[in-house]
Amino acid sequence: MKELEQRILKDGEFLGNDILKVSSFLNQQVDTDLLVKMAKEVKRLFPEEVTKVLTIEASGLPFACMVAFEFGVPFVFAKKSKTSNVSGELATALVHSFTHNKDNLISVPCQYIKKTDKVLIIDDFLANGEALRGLISIVEQCNASVVGCCVQIEKEYQNGGNALRNKGYKVIALASIKEMAGNIIQFN
Amino acid sequence: MKELEQRILKDGEFLGNDILKVSSFLNQQVDTDLLVKMAKEVKRLFPEEVTKVLTIEASGLPFACMVAFEFGVPFVFAKKSKTSNVSGELATALVHSFTHNKDNLISVPCQYIKKTDKVLIIDDFLANGEALRGLISIVEQCNASVVGCCVQIEKEYQNGGNALRNKGYKVIALASIKEMAGNIIQFN
Repeated sequence: MKELEQRILKDGEFLGNDILKVSSFLNQQVDTDLLVKMAKEVKRLFPEEVTKVLTIEASGLPFACMVAFEFGVPFVFAKKSKTSNVSGELATALVHSFTHNKDNLISVPCQYIKKTDKVLIIDDFLANGEALRGLISIVEQCNASVVGCCVQIEKEYQNGGNALRNKGYKVIALASIKEMAGNIIQFN
Repeated sequence: MKELEQRILKDGEFLGNDILKVSSFLNQQVDTDLLVKMAKEVKRLFPEEVTKVLTIEASGLPFACMVAFEFGVPFVFAKKSKTSNVSGELATALVHSFTHNKDNLISVPCQYIKKTDKVLIIDDFLANGEALRGLISIVEQCNASVVGCCVQIEKEYQNGGNALRNKGYKVIALASIKEMAGNIIQFN
């Protein structure tokens, strides 16, 4: 998506050590105009039937919310911590966060993902694919179908996305980074 | 807001110990239709000029996102944990979470809230008012103006909202619970 790529070049900050910071328009301050345009693009890229959108807290939430609105369906998010008032069967997965360098046991009550659901999985970043793998596992534990995965930005050279594509999942990034070195970023 | 009250009566679960669970339509599975209606209602209730929406991760994010979209402005969220790639001056506040029974140091980089910003603060629940007080403090540390606070559900009997109103802040809840006892819930 050209507009997202241009915005990354204009407002993204390259902090070295493979860190691309997009907090000024995607990740802590969110440009809702851009968010809506991205959600419409997701709708175009996934003409399949979608009955539910699934993401993981916290930074995937705004994008998932707008995407779900475009599709006219509810969205569900996996929580990272167990709150005191959860009941019923839970689908869970262990997900390693490279940003915070810790393992999170993410969970979704099975009652929110039915067997008949066709689930589009949404996240902000895709690098090693940890979060997407966990979310796919949750959908499959609930015996529902994975329509595909869509992320805002993929670091393609980290291979998490291609590993999932090789398993047959439809995985699309709105901006796919082929190479990031110094202040130079190359999109695919 | 009548539709929200009716939905709470229909799909909310009263778990005792003052816990109202709305995870099936607001808090973990989110009904985007209802979310949009709530956002439009917020726009109607706050005719003031708003240049930015502020919330706290994670469960306030979807509501804040839709409200910001209605106002046509960006939104910013306070983070609960310090990530490795934050730079520049931070506005911070200590907020106690009663759900998780722990203190969180929430923070927003000051560059995302300018002196000229007129900020509408958004959250899902209002009980003791801890989160709203923290967010108000963050706006004021950035020398910006607080337009007001709007939440989905207020437990009015816990007085967090009224304490803020007594200080002169405009605080509105879309559903305000006067009393909750056993399976009976009374709105104001």
